[in-house]
Amino acid sequence: MINFDFCSPTRFIFGRGVEKQVGATAAQFGAKKVLIQYGGGSVKKSGLLDTVTASLREAGIAYVELGGVQPNPRVSLVREAIELCRKEGVDLILAVGGGSVIDSCKATGLGYYYDGDVWDFYCGKATPAKTLPVGVVLTLAAAGSEGSNSSVITNEAIHMKRGLNCELTRPAFALMNPELTFSLPAYQTACGAVDIMAHAMERYFTNTPHVELIDRMIEALIKTVMHNAPVLMENPSDYEARAEIMWAGTLAHNNLLGTGRECDWASHQLEHELSGIYDVAHGAGLAVVIPAWMKYVYKHDIARFAQFAVRVMDVEMDFFDPEKTAREGIRRLEAFYTSIGMPITLKELGVPTDRLKEMADNCKETDPSDHSTGHFIRLTHADCYEVYKLMA
Amino acid sequence: MINFDFCSPTRFIFGRGVEKQVGATAAQFGAKKVLIQYGGGSVKKSGLLDTVTASLREAGIAYVELGGVQPNPRVSLVREAIELCRKEGVDLILAVGGGSVIDSCKATGLGYYYDGDVWDFYCGKATPAKTLPVGVVLTLAAAGSEGSNSSVITNEAIHMKRGLNCELTRPAFALMNPELTFSLPAYQTACGAVDIMAHAMERYFTNTPHVELIDRMIEALIKTVMHNAPVLMENPSDYEARAEIMWAGTLAHNNLLGTGRECDWASHQLEHELSGIYDVAHGAGLAVVIPAWMKYVYKHDIARFAQFAVRVMDVEMDFFDPEKTAREGIRRLEAFYTSIGMPITLKELGVPTDRLKEMADNCKETDPSDHSTGHFIRLTHADCYEVYKLMA
Repeated sequence: MINFDFCSPTRFIFGRGVEKQVGATAAQFGAKKVLIQYGGGSVKKSGLLDTVTASLREAGIAYVELGGVQPNPRVSLVREAIELCRKEGVDLILAVGGGSVIDSCKATGLGYYYDGDVWDFYCGKATPAKTLPVGVVLTLAAAGSEGSNSSVITNEAIHMKRGLNCELTRPAFALMNPELTFSLPAYQTACGAVDIMAHAMERYFTNTPHVELIDRMIEALIKTVMHNAPVLMENPSDYEARAEIMWAGTLAHNNLLGTGRECDWASHQLEHELSGIYDVAHGAGLAVVIPAWMKYVYKHDIARFAQFAVRVMDVEMDFFDPEKTAREGIRRLEAFYTSIGMPITLKELGVPTDRLKEMADNCKETDPSDHSTGHFIRLTHADCYEVYKLMA
Repeated sequence: MINFDFCSPTRFIFGRGVEKQVGATAAQFGAKKVLIQYGGGSVKKSGLLDTVTASLREAGIAYVELGGVQPNPRVSLVREAIELCRKEGVDLILAVGGGSVIDSCKATGLGYYYDGDVWDFYCGKATPAKTLPVGVVLTLAAAGSEGSNSSVITNEAIHMKRGLNCELTRPAFALMNPELTFSLPAYQTACGAVDIMAHAMERYFTNTPHVELIDRMIEALIKTVMHNAPVLMENPSDYEARAEIMWAGTLAHNNLLGTGRECDWASHQLEHELSGIYDVAHGAGLAVVIPAWMKYVYKHDIARFAQFAVRVMDVEMDFFDPEKTAREGIRRLEAFYTSIGMPITLKELGVPTDRLKEMADNCKETDPSDHSTGHFIRLTHADCYEVYKLMA
């Protein structure tokens, strides 16, 4: 186990009807005037926005609204939100939505106290010093942004998507009612499940020895998602399955499962290039990337991949051929993705293979000193190209 | 899954040498003058207290010291500590020790802002409104108080030991170096392991259906403790095993593993009566209580006890006789306790059987409305007596 520093101060209020507590909760955090950000019109149509504003009014909290946050949240809207907060004297930002809306709010909170352009934080030109508090009413189980320290913003003018890890951006509170996810289409639910599992797997495949507790907890989380996602393919309104997956989504990414270990993150970089060029859903992209990445790297630590196969994928250990056990684990992961309607090849994803080299060369380097991506194995751009080819 | 409200804001700084960060960390929390509480002289002998005070001086933080916190921390010392804090203008309390020292500091922090007697909080006469922040340098993996909302204080004048659950008492930060636990005697290490497992099991045995994620996470934690505690019986200085158990100790009791479910806590009440009369270590008492409690209640939910047996105790499921599977799980838990030198009967614990009825009648009622203890099964005083008899 390696040394760590972990703090997840977010207050999670979870269960049926908790969105009605938003006014009282915001008041406990001292809010007098709130900026509500949301995405498309679904929170209006569903009546959720009305519930939220009624609760705020009841708590004597004023509010302004800003809709139109897009799936890859734009820095232009963030800039607009920052101006609105300043003009209106907002003291808390409320995200009503999923990861994109939350990330837009996180960026707004950081930009509020900064004299320069908020993009400076995302391109590495400046470090945030302070933030407005962010509250969340979650409508999607996937990104885990409701409990994480990360946000991803797109600068549409220069076609650049950049992430920021910053402890200041952990939300102050998150209201999580699994019922609010009943109406999600099956495809989006499946994408969410893949994303949640990916956050756990990026942490699982590590070179750090002696990480038993967190290994086992990650296994617990992935098994739970794999057990409950198929239930939702049959019955999208199964409360218990929605609840398991929603809480798993938070715990997969608040970095409890990253404590004491080096994490990988190559698969996320490979997927970012994919969805950067082709407009594919992040989860669907990950379902294609991860098995390919696994096939490329598993020989680096057959014992760990065999453990994954046996403990998570219920493969029977072949003691005389651990490598075969490891490969069977990867095969079963692919079979699982397929079973919930996810693609496992570029073809199934609808992506052509003529720009693989370009994507490989653009893959963000985790360690610029040796131009490598990921930690489990440090992939060169040439390695990335090989991984992309395995997706064909 | 039932609704929940969970917030664990403590900052955990974990690993080799982290105690040297205490000054810098306390400064980040705005500390100007600290009260250091500790127990016997071991932190002096080991040099830990010198390390802590040197770090505080380096950060420009003044301090006063108060040693002598006893294993069942006394309210008289807490009162003394409160006076000291007021007289000296202390703004942060630092616990250097294990659960008892931390609990004494938690009570001190609450009492500081209260005009009446701090015992009022523990006997239910008053509710805390504010606290001084508490920091921790942990020297013992067991009680989990470094991350929990609970504290237990003894009023020696009236022979009463009472617990308080209060979100205000979650520590601001905890510095956790597993090396600081190398010198613990095997018996105390084993007691700690039993206590940690008990915190997980009190949450595991629930009537709440559909709690898969947390079930699996609890199983992960108990298995990890069972795997690593025996390592320490052989080699008390095994860093990795100490680290697994220390982090497990925190996660077993910060109530992450209680989210979404009703918990039991009857075994803790039964043990409190035992250690209240006879001076036995809490962990050793629990090793005697828990198997007896299990034997008395397992028929209430054979499926859950079979799941525990199979997933935690590695019992092979007997599909034609789940009850036998459940019983074998309990037997293996007893065998585990025995293997790490823990007692599993009152006789082995050195406790006579002539006051069992008295202890049963004194068992703290979890629900005064029906005079019952625990939730998995609501034990009457007569039930408690039967459980005690099973320990003979």
